[in-house]
Amino acid sequence: MSQFERRQWQITERPFRPCDLPHTETIYTIGNGLYGVRGTFEEGYPGDTSTTLAAGIFNHVEGELVPELVAMPNPLELIVHINGETFRLDQGTIMGYERVLDMQCGTLSRGVLWLSPQGTRLRLHFERFASLHDEHLLALRVLVQPLSEGTHTISIENRLDGNATNPGGISHWGAVQVGADAETLHFIGETNQSGYQVALAADLHVDGAAVQCGADDQSGNRAGNRATHTATFELAGNQIAYVTKLVTLHTSRDGDDPLRSALDRLKIARASGYSVLKAAHDSAWAAAWDKMDILIEGDEVAQKAVRFCMYHLLIAAPHTDERVSVAAKTLSGYGYKGHVFWDTELFIVPPFTLADPESARRLLMYRHHNLQGARDKATEAGYQGAMFPWESTDTGQETTPRWTEPHPISGERIRIWTGDNEQHISSDIAYAALQFWRWTGDDDWFAAYGAELVLDTAVFWGSRVEYNAEAGRYELSMQIGPDEYHENVNNSVFTNRLVKWHLEQAAEVHAWLQAERPADGQRLSAALGIEATMIDHWREVAARMFIPMSDENGGVFEQFEGFFDQLQAFNLADYTPRTKNIDWMLGQEKMQSTRVIKQADVVMLMALLGDELGDHDFLLRNWQTYLPVVDHGSSLSPSIHAWVAARLGLVDEAYDLFIYSATIDLEDHKGNVHDGIHAASCGGVWQAVVFGFCGLRLTADGVTVAPCLPEHWRRVRFTVQHKGQPVTIDITPEGVA
Amino acid sequence: MSQFERRQWQITERPFRPCDLPHTETIYTIGNGLYGVRGTFEEGYPGDTSTTLAAGIFNHVEGELVPELVAMPNPLELIVHINGETFRLDQGTIMGYERVLDMQCGTLSRGVLWLSPQGTRLRLHFERFASLHDEHLLALRVLVQPLSEGTHTISIENRLDGNATNPGGISHWGAVQVGADAETLHFIGETNQSGYQVALAADLHVDGAAVQCGADDQSGNRAGNRATHTATFELAGNQIAYVTKLVTLHTSRDGDDPLRSALDRLKIARASGYSVLKAAHDSAWAAAWDKMDILIEGDEVAQKAVRFCMYHLLIAAPHTDERVSVAAKTLSGYGYKGHVFWDTELFIVPPFTLADPESARRLLMYRHHNLQGARDKATEAGYQGAMFPWESTDTGQETTPRWTEPHPISGERIRIWTGDNEQHISSDIAYAALQFWRWTGDDDWFAAYGAELVLDTAVFWGSRVEYNAEAGRYELSMQIGPDEYHENVNNSVFTNRLVKWHLEQAAEVHAWLQAERPADGQRLSAALGIEATMIDHWREVAARMFIPMSDENGGVFEQFEGFFDQLQAFNLADYTPRTKNIDWMLGQEKMQSTRVIKQADVVMLMALLGDELGDHDFLLRNWQTYLPVVDHGSSLSPSIHAWVAARLGLVDEAYDLFIYSATIDLEDHKGNVHDGIHAASCGGVWQAVVFGFCGLRLTADGVTVAPCLPEHWRRVRFTVQHKGQPVTIDITPEGVA
Repeated sequence: MSQFERRQWQITERPFRPCDLPHTETIYTIGNGLYGVRGTFEEGYPGDTSTTLAAGIFNHVEGELVPELVAMPNPLELIVHINGETFRLDQGTIMGYERVLDMQCGTLSRGVLWLSPQGTRLRLHFERFASLHDEHLLALRVLVQPLSEGTHTISIENRLDGNATNPGGISHWGAVQVGADAETLHFIGETNQSGYQVALAADLHVDGAAVQCGADDQSGNRAGNRATHTATFELAGNQIAYVTKLVTLHTSRDGDDPLRSALDRLKIARASGYSVLKAAHDSAWAAAWDKMDILIEGDEVAQKAVRFCMYHLLIAAPHTDERVSVAAKTLSGYGYKGHVFWDTELFIVPPFTLADPESARRLLMYRHHNLQGARDKATEAGYQGAMFPWESTDTGQETTPRWTEPHPISGERIRIWTGDNEQHISSDIAYAALQFWRWTGDDDWFAAYGAELVLDTAVFWGSRVEYNAEAGRYELSMQIGPDEYHENVNNSVFTNRLVKWHLEQAAEVHAWLQAERPADGQRLSAALGIEATMIDHWREVAARMFIPMSDENGGVFEQFEGFFDQLQAFNLADYTPRTKNIDWMLGQEKMQSTRVIKQADVVMLMALLGDELGDHDFLLRNWQTYLPVVDHGSSLSPSIHAWVAARLGLVDEAYDLFIYSATIDLEDHKGNVHDGIHAASCGGVWQAVVFGFCGLRLTADGVTVAPCLPEHWRRVRFTVQHKGQPVTIDITPEGVA
Repeated sequence: MSQFERRQWQITERPFRPCDLPHTETIYTIGNGLYGVRGTFEEGYPGDTSTTLAAGIFNHVEGELVPELVAMPNPLELIVHINGETFRLDQGTIMGYERVLDMQCGTLSRGVLWLSPQGTRLRLHFERFASLHDEHLLALRVLVQPLSEGTHTISIENRLDGNATNPGGISHWGAVQVGADAETLHFIGETNQSGYQVALAADLHVDGAAVQCGADDQSGNRAGNRATHTATFELAGNQIAYVTKLVTLHTSRDGDDPLRSALDRLKIARASGYSVLKAAHDSAWAAAWDKMDILIEGDEVAQKAVRFCMYHLLIAAPHTDERVSVAAKTLSGYGYKGHVFWDTELFIVPPFTLADPESARRLLMYRHHNLQGARDKATEAGYQGAMFPWESTDTGQETTPRWTEPHPISGERIRIWTGDNEQHISSDIAYAALQFWRWTGDDDWFAAYGAELVLDTAVFWGSRVEYNAEAGRYELSMQIGPDEYHENVNNSVFTNRLVKWHLEQAAEVHAWLQAERPADGQRLSAALGIEATMIDHWREVAARMFIPMSDENGGVFEQFEGFFDQLQAFNLADYTPRTKNIDWMLGQEKMQSTRVIKQADVVMLMALLGDELGDHDFLLRNWQTYLPVVDHGSSLSPSIHAWVAARLGLVDEAYDLFIYSATIDLEDHKGNVHDGIHAASCGGVWQAVVFGFCGLRLTADGVTVAPCLPEHWRRVRFTVQHKGQPVTIDITPEGVA
């Protein structure tokens, strides 16, 4: 591979830019679906946010509004001392620095040439990975090389600190034990509300030309909730030693005795050694990229950015566990407290459904396992069936806060309505399940699990819709569509149209079960209380669902009733350039009465249902109507707009929106990447390329493409799975291979 | 033009990154050859380095080692107040921010959405340009739009501050006068040693839907060396006003009464109005790019970076004045105090020679006008002819400091030898003059001026060489080649080989003059004291010049005598990654005895003389010998290596070095861009593309190319001038058009 090709896999920081740390910590997160570790330094840095989050380990501290992902003990801590001086980048002089995230093998490295305050030259090269082969394992290796003459005393501290807290100093830990023996450090703790047990074990090994330094040369000590191993050895000038730290993590989610598991696994890993562990990890990444990579030639910016998006989905999605899902900000930051939204089903699942169906299946199973929470929510609200929570954690219960945190000055709290009224998520989940079924053709899975997701949410809608006798139509009042600037509106066209489609699909699913899988059909009908009259009702609702339309601009969808008549026009162009969202600037109350929308809403509907909604001219009119009023106040918006623009043949507009969304994290367009990766945008970017520019569709004839590539792209190549068969799409300006 | 194509001309900052200011101030410099203005904000920012430098305005303050470019009064100052609150980015809240350098039209703009501490929303859009049409003019325009409801009092302060100082608080100004009348502010000052007079005049105009605010509404006042105009007006919410500030700059370099000129020119500019001035500026840029642009398709990073390099050469090179040259750091920072080095002739002049010969001619004339300084230097050193100074300013005298500044702790000063012994610059200048002649075919210019540069420097070398009777060869002791890590070496192969070539050329030039321009020949022979015996001497020296060779690696140039035998081997790979140079790490003394070189030296020779030096295998052996020991401790190094690698067919290695040098300023690889743009690298990048990847040469058959493009490039297109005729080179993977 040429250096140029290698660069298409690398995100490089050179030289060191301390002010960028909140940003680079997020983008340099490593992970493997089981846990994510932010890109902080092994030795720390003043003001850093060292963060390790483990999928599904939520806890709800008394007095807090909602549960959140729990900060794990920092597994990275490793401090290098030379001749009594402590290596740290805020002291001494940085003579060289380069950090590289090699996305191809999910490995973060950092080279440093450091001049200590006392004038000793030291070369360090750090490397770390969260094993994709063994998801319980984190491995670090440091090359240590003094570059000054003479003999140098190196000492390496391996620390494990049990005092991890979440932002605001919130501690989720109840009983915690930290221990050290001659070979290992360990941590075992239990979350104080949810009762998860978490165990970490860590060891340290030094080898090189000069030293062979195992457990015997180390001293372990423990003070309070902290334990430390120190390995001390000597190196002559230019001599090299390699320091290896292995960490294993187990929780009560994966077994009964996590500490035993962590210690056992550490022992096995140690026996393998770093190189073997790394090779297994690299192979696992190669296999992952075989499935997920999109090759884009002729556009280095797009190529790296798309790979960056895929990298972050690959390290965020569970690789074994089907009882966890992907948090809105992945495991790379504390934003949204690790909660799961519709982001998963409509943005993140589709790339996996097409490219790595097994991962998609796990994510869909998360919803199936949590059907009880959705049923509880429906019951509580007075409905039938399954009404999925807007925000979901480990329990499947609704975890959207009902109120904002008190305003720091006024003490005012604002009511949050999404948990009550952003009900379209139930159909979004059905959409994802149906999409999975169509692409995979996995009838067994669908009959066993997927159909239940589609049907029980249909049961919910059947009970939820309101009949307007006067107008002879079904309606949905008090909804929030994707455009969250307008809350509790009546007849959101996104929601109504999607529910119409959902009920049509549900009726067909029911018929398919009757015909093809009668046992499952009977099981589900019994369990969900579905009778023939209910199917008739669904068809009736679908046929007579109110779809708000307007004469505006020659005839378009009306985003919700009153959108054109009752809202005030607003010149969004005056608010250019904006980094903050328009609702932040004008206040949420003002937004309610203003014709500015947060994100793709009608356009989102166009992305999902496309040609089913109308002809090209109708779709174009809708595009032209809603584009000028969209704030892109959500990172979910630009990629969907890119996708739709490409389908409308507006390739220049599509490219602008695509490249903005593809680089939203890498370039920190919103200035908020420190909170974590915009996971939905990552998935939206994949869809913008595949469904948008390449026009991939599943038709009666199978997989088809209708490319509309940016003019400067020379090639797009990726592989999707259709009914268990890989289909490689390879598009160049000369044609499709 | 699509947004994508537009982006290939734009350098964008979004969102605001305060810590990057030292870097962005440099890269966002605007200019027009007469002056350069760093990209500081109109309203200032804590810790910024507002800098305006005017070409050729040097001054030597008593007690300082050398003269330096003089800091002009800041022409940008323009402060916006709204309802008594002062707009500044370190207060209030930034709701939106985007800065764009549009290289296509040499215009810097900044959009800001700002929330004042009192809660008023304000939109500002700044635009500025240093007119390329009228080089004495700087124009700024600000769109002001309050976005909060109600009526807002806007006041705009236009300031001119005569207290400009250079770094270290050094003031170069003697008598200074700052004044204000109803319409204009003005500054007139005189440098306290060199006696240059500098005048600035500035005015302010406000117009918009709501206000018509000219001089009558303004109050001018003066306090000490500062003068201020304030324009106050009211704007309703969402109303827009445009504030225009025009500044003119004249110096005694361009006329006797700079203040009169500045005031007159301001009056004319004001009559034209901003839009007309901008249109003329844009046209001038379009014409400049018609000459200088290199189109690169298939590589956005390279395309933008190459344009960025050309942009900075275009704003640094004089467009009218032939008595100034391009400073090593252009007019974008204080690095190297604005001095002129060989950087100009071997890195910066060649792109102009081929693409814009008139600009190249001006730069070469700078050396011709300063021949006296070179003759003085030769005489002082006991030689004949013209010995050009290593560092040059306005006087043409040697201005290299002899000693470093005292070390802050030890007080130690280190002797700087380049001014004495880096003598190859005289041949570098001859090389540039000959290259200009060959490409332009401008015999008139060459006979009148160019030949004198070639011949008088040959006269110098004829007197400088040392005859080693024992070996029967000519030698040069006590030299510094491009590799400045090794000072005062004997028989630098770069210097010896270039002098050999130079003397051969000089003899031919002399013969050409005799044959084609006998009158000029006689004039020059008389003036320079050239007789027939001297020509014989040159031929003799050229024939018997010692070219050090070594058996190393199968036979290569020896960089200087003892390079392989006497220097200690050093593993440069241990010092990876480095940001600081290796001499900084190890000390200059250690470098003298170590086989690590600062930059392209033998490789530089290969770039200049190419095939004349030997066959492909010989050149490849030299490459393989010197590449592992080069520190790239000068920004002049990577681009030359890229060029040579491409000629050797090593396209991957060439591309790595090329892209590193092309982005050295944009990505601040060395962390020192705050000192100014690396101008020589900019010119080297052009040569790496044109001479390297495209293999452009001038042969007996005319202009030829031998492309060796990076695999992912789809097209390279540029135009060179050959003997007054434009030749467009258009290379695609399919062939050359």
